[in-house]
Amino acid sequence: MTKKTAILLYPYFSEYELTTALSILMQGGKPVSFIGLTKDPIIGESGLTCLPDLTIDDIQPEEYDSLLLSGCMYIDKIIDIQDYSSFIQRISSQKNFVTAAISSSPYLLAKAGLLKGKKYTVGLSEELRKQSPYFEEENYVGELVVTDNNLITAWGAAFISFGVQFGKALQLDFEEGWYRG
Amino acid sequence: MTKKTAILLYPYFSEYELTTALSILMQGGKPVSFIGLTKDPIIGESGLTCLPDLTIDDIQPEEYDSLLLSGCMYIDKIIDIQDYSSFIQRISSQKNFVTAAISSSPYLLAKAGLLKGKKYTVGLSEELRKQSPYFEEENYVGELVVTDNNLITAWGAAFISFGVQFGKALQLDFEEGWYRG
Repeated sequence: MTKKTAILLYPYFSEYELTTALSILMQGGKPVSFIGLTKDPIIGESGLTCLPDLTIDDIQPEEYDSLLLSGCMYIDKIIDIQDYSSFIQRISSQKNFVTAAISSSPYLLAKAGLLKGKKYTVGLSEELRKQSPYFEEENYVGELVVTDNNLITAWGAAFISFGVQFGKALQLDFEEGWYRG
Repeated sequence: MTKKTAILLYPYFSEYELTTALSILMQGGKPVSFIGLTKDPIIGESGLTCLPDLTIDDIQPEEYDSLLLSGCMYIDKIIDIQDYSSFIQRISSQKNFVTAAISSSPYLLAKAGLLKGKKYTVGLSEELRKQSPYFEEENYVGELVVTDNNLITAWGAAFISFGVQFGKALQLDFEEGWYRG
């Protein structure tokens, strides 16, 4: 069975940061699941109401080889939700698993311990990174997209390159130039 | 009252073609309504399930000053739905109304008669345009984004420029460079 990409949805997720990567997954024929804490509707930062396919409790981790996280306009309001951290740890601990997070969402990875010893970027100021106990400042890289083995992090503005790098990490066949019109 | 942008959702709508424009509307503080034929969930081309806020029968046209249409992967399956044409005609006939359609969706405008005598583009081949009785080939412009007064049409790949032109037509205040990372 082709393994799937897990996409976590949370309130105020950034629709545009997610959807180019999503289109690349579709081009590459990659199956996806949209996952919420519950199956209740989730409203993005620009007002689009979405429905998760599954809850984090429904997930069989072995059906997934990758995780995609979009930015969240109010990351502070969700960062302490332990269910997100547990889910991220549980699914990402699999061998050769690819994890991609854009804008503020690498904070969720940091909280879950996934950035330890890894080069990363995040769309948060140095001040905010230093206020948090979860970021290793010496491994922060001030670039648009940062790849460390199977970990991809990016600034929000680099949403196209982020999607392209994610598609490549998954070895998908897609038309990279399509989104550069 | 600030007038709103109406966003029509249909099965297999393109999520990424919609969401940069959506983010620009959010930046500019523009209220939006997502509109469906019914309030049933609608699944985009990349698998994201969305919920409309309103049905086309709920709409008070005078609350809107603009319409935003995303591409549809299977436009042929929806082009003959008369309720879409009637809705587009009804809402767009208002004075100074701004209409924006990307990728295959200008076909919906053509069907509703909105492209008559207007310069436009569309993400359909010349062969497909000529097979349809609704396009005026002499007014087709082979450019990424085409603006004719309050009508904006674009190819799918130009989704960023499309959103920027739409935001400008609505005289919104937004950071245009944000999406060019």
